Amino acid sequence: MDNDAHDSPAPLRFGANYTPRAQWMHAWLSLDLDEVRRDMAALADLGLDHLRIFPLWTVLQPNRTLIRPEAVDDVRAVVDVAAEFGLDVSVDVIQGHLSSFDFIPSWLFTWHDKNMFTHPEALSGQAELVTRLGERLTDAGNFLGFTLGNETNQFSAQTHPSPWPVSEAEAAGWITTLLDAAAASAPAQQHVHSEYDAAWYMDGHGFTPALAARLGAMTTVHSWIFNGTAQRYGGRSPASDRHAEYMIELARGFATDPDRAIWLQEVGAPSNCLAPEETPDFLEATLRSVVRTDRLWGVTWWCSHDVSRELADFPELEYTLGLVDQSGTPKPIGRRFAELIPELRERRPAPPRTVGIVVEVDEGDVPISRGAMSPGGAIFQAWVDACTAGIDPVIVTSKDADDPALLARRGITELVRPAVTRTDYASQNTVV
Amino acid sequence: MDNDAHDSPAPLRFGANYTPRAQWMHAWLSLDLDEVRRDMAALADLGLDHLRIFPLWTVLQPNRTLIRPEAVDDVRAVVDVAAEFGLDVSVDVIQGHLSSFDFIPSWLFTWHDKNMFTHPEALSGQAELVTRLGERLTDAGNFLGFTLGNETNQFSAQTHPSPWPVSEAEAAGWITTLLDAAAASAPAQQHVHSEYDAAWYMDGHGFTPALAARLGAMTTVHSWIFNGTAQRYGGRSPASDRHAEYMIELARGFATDPDRAIWLQEVGAPSNCLAPEETPDFLEATLRSVVRTDRLWGVTWWCSHDVSRELADFPELEYTLGLVDQSGTPKPIGRRFAELIPELRERRPAPPRTVGIVVEVDEGDVPISRGAMSPGGAIFQAWVDACTAGIDPVIVTSKDADDPALLARRGITELVRPAVTRTDYASQNTVV
Repeated sequence: MDNDAHDSPAPLRFGANYTPRAQWMHAWLSLDLDEVRRDMAALADLGLDHLRIFPLWTVLQPNRTLIRPEAVDDVRAVVDVAAEFGLDVSVDVIQGHLSSFDFIPSWLFTWHDKNMFTHPEALSGQAELVTRLGERLTDAGNFLGFTLGNETNQFSAQTHPSPWPVSEAEAAGWITTLLDAAAASAPAQQHVHSEYDAAWYMDGHGFTPALAARLGAMTTVHSWIFNGTAQRYGGRSPASDRHAEYMIELARGFATDPDRAIWLQEVGAPSNCLAPEETPDFLEATLRSVVRTDRLWGVTWWCSHDVSRELADFPELEYTLGLVDQSGTPKPIGRRFAELIPELRERRPAPPRTVGIVVEVDEGDVPISRGAMSPGGAIFQAWVDACTAGIDPVIVTSKDADDPALLARRGITELVRPAVTRTDYASQNTVV
Repeated sequence: MDNDAHDSPAPLRFGANYTPRAQWMHAWLSLDLDEVRRDMAALADLGLDHLRIFPLWTVLQPNRTLIRPEAVDDVRAVVDVAAEFGLDVSVDVIQGHLSSFDFIPSWLFTWHDKNMFTHPEALSGQAELVTRLGERLTDAGNFLGFTLGNETNQFSAQTHPSPWPVSEAEAAGWITTLLDAAAASAPAQQHVHSEYDAAWYMDGHGFTPALAARLGAMTTVHSWIFNGTAQRYGGRSPASDRHAEYMIELARGFATDPDRAIWLQEVGAPSNCLAPEETPDFLEATLRSVVRTDRLWGVTWWCSHDVSRELADFPELEYTLGLVDQSGTPKPIGRRFAELIPELRERRPAPPRTVGIVVEVDEGDVPISRGAMSPGGAIFQAWVDACTAGIDPVIVTSKDADDPALLARRGITELVRPAVTRTDYASQNTVV
């Protein structure tokens, strides 16, 4: 947990997305710090060094100009309790969307429907929330920084029942506005944004690979094999075991800063793709593949605790994603995580990667077919084929592929160019 | 406040819809009973005998199977505080919709979109909430009963951005299911449902006059002159001053129980229709007209306190509807209410009404044109014309108009039959 070591590289970070054992995120409505302590003790026992937490937007900001001091204090209290257990904390704001449930404040929907990404009052309201939380948290020594909500881009997706569509410029405007508010109010911390994989796999989506890989202190990766990967290739296939690694390399391919860190912020073992007894091995395969990537900040497993069966209406897979079960006992996947962390946290040099799979991009660095990058697409398949052949490939954009100095710096000596045709946006519904 | 007097009729009830002075309904998120006491002291000082309160659905039931004991206790605590001030309390459940803001739990919208009126799990979830609240409140001596949410029918309206449309049978099913849960869990109290005026004025609306006037312990009336009445006839016109009375007589016209009580549950003086200096006279005119109607339970003014200007995004008129201002001082309209209550609470015999305006209904007692009953429609105009001619009319359905015994019992000796044509539902958008 020493971020300031200059003689040796900082160790890899391993943590969990914190899903309170009792009442899930609804626990924020009447926060019980003894419950929080109970949960965090179990997670610290696994050897985790950080948590990502999810205070609900509707609880923090029920009216645009009412940012509840009690709720802000509750977030600080949870951060402080984590410190009791030696845990650092990343805090999501604009929460937003979690495990299929939306928490949109009443000042933004139905009669008050406003595009949260573009409406001036929606933007200023969110910036104010970030500011107030930043001011309250910045002097907490274990506060890592903000994430601008969990996969907030789903609110812009074309397929969502109440979409707020955005152009890439509008998505950038939203991200930048809130990152600026975070930097101004919590300058000591590192702030990021997060997207579900539509940013990488869905053509026409305003949240693009370039935004994901260039805005914020790190690139965050959310890897879920239920996105078609497991269905097409198998839950314990190389494609699934190395899906997180693939997304990390996609993220690196679109970065412009060669030193930019990448955070595998969400990855989990979903029951609709994996039998319970397969999940420890899936976790181990995922970890062993991603620790071989360069500039990895760390891995934050989804999630800490199984969702209580007393809570209704979650998709079935959400009830069993925890490292710890409903009795507070670590599950086999949690024990495997605990066994691996001491070995994996020490950084080793990333192995060289000489084969670059080329993603053709347009003049704005948008892939001409994000569908080709998605599970089953030509680029995805080229990755799988290379892995199967024993090669560790990387991703490179067509623009970078024309830059010999860049290729030399990255150590790329061979290019693979999958045949990709520009996606017809009108027939997008089956891409993701 | 003596409901059990047999020798003399119970006095008329006068109260207010309670809008907490600080934080509006968001006060439920971290209830401060000292604030509640401060607010209720001001209202008791005005001479009110009851309040209607609005705990938020999202706070009570954030997950379908998580009915938060803390939130249920908070409702009881507010009822108990009211008792300290001699105030009875009516409790809204399924809240729902208030002052343009919707509070729909995440288990019912976007990814979990279910028709709250018809989906079996939505119904059982709501019934369970009613049951849990009923069990907690039924032994409170000052608990009057439940209302099944505030104008919940707006969630079914065709014009709403995310409607859950219902047939009349489905609306009846929802009302009956929840009334049954209320009666079973709180048998000592009287439970009602409430609708905004689409039930009376919007053709094709599943919530009908018959349901409003026949289900539940009383008929509730919500009278708002911004529905076109003030715009067409003037804010201090007879049409506006007697709009509540008109809706009461509409309600009586559709009742099948001649002894059924009618509760003017909401009426207010909106700033988009009335100048501030006009509001006390509007209140007085409204009260003096409605106390002349038969079987009136009482009047609950909207609302107790002005909404704080520190809260954003309310429609402008919502900031000034209070009897008490943001400093806690009674406004002129509140003082006028206080002056009138002692005089008006003693019941006087309702004057005879011999002229019946006939509403043509179909075989299911649905008006062939609810548009004709709405402001500017032929039936509404017939009411205004009669009032202008010094007549106190009543409303009678075409079915009842064919029943001489019924007319005799009601004392109706003359029928007025406005020419009404069946409404073309396809051109309904301009009716309300």
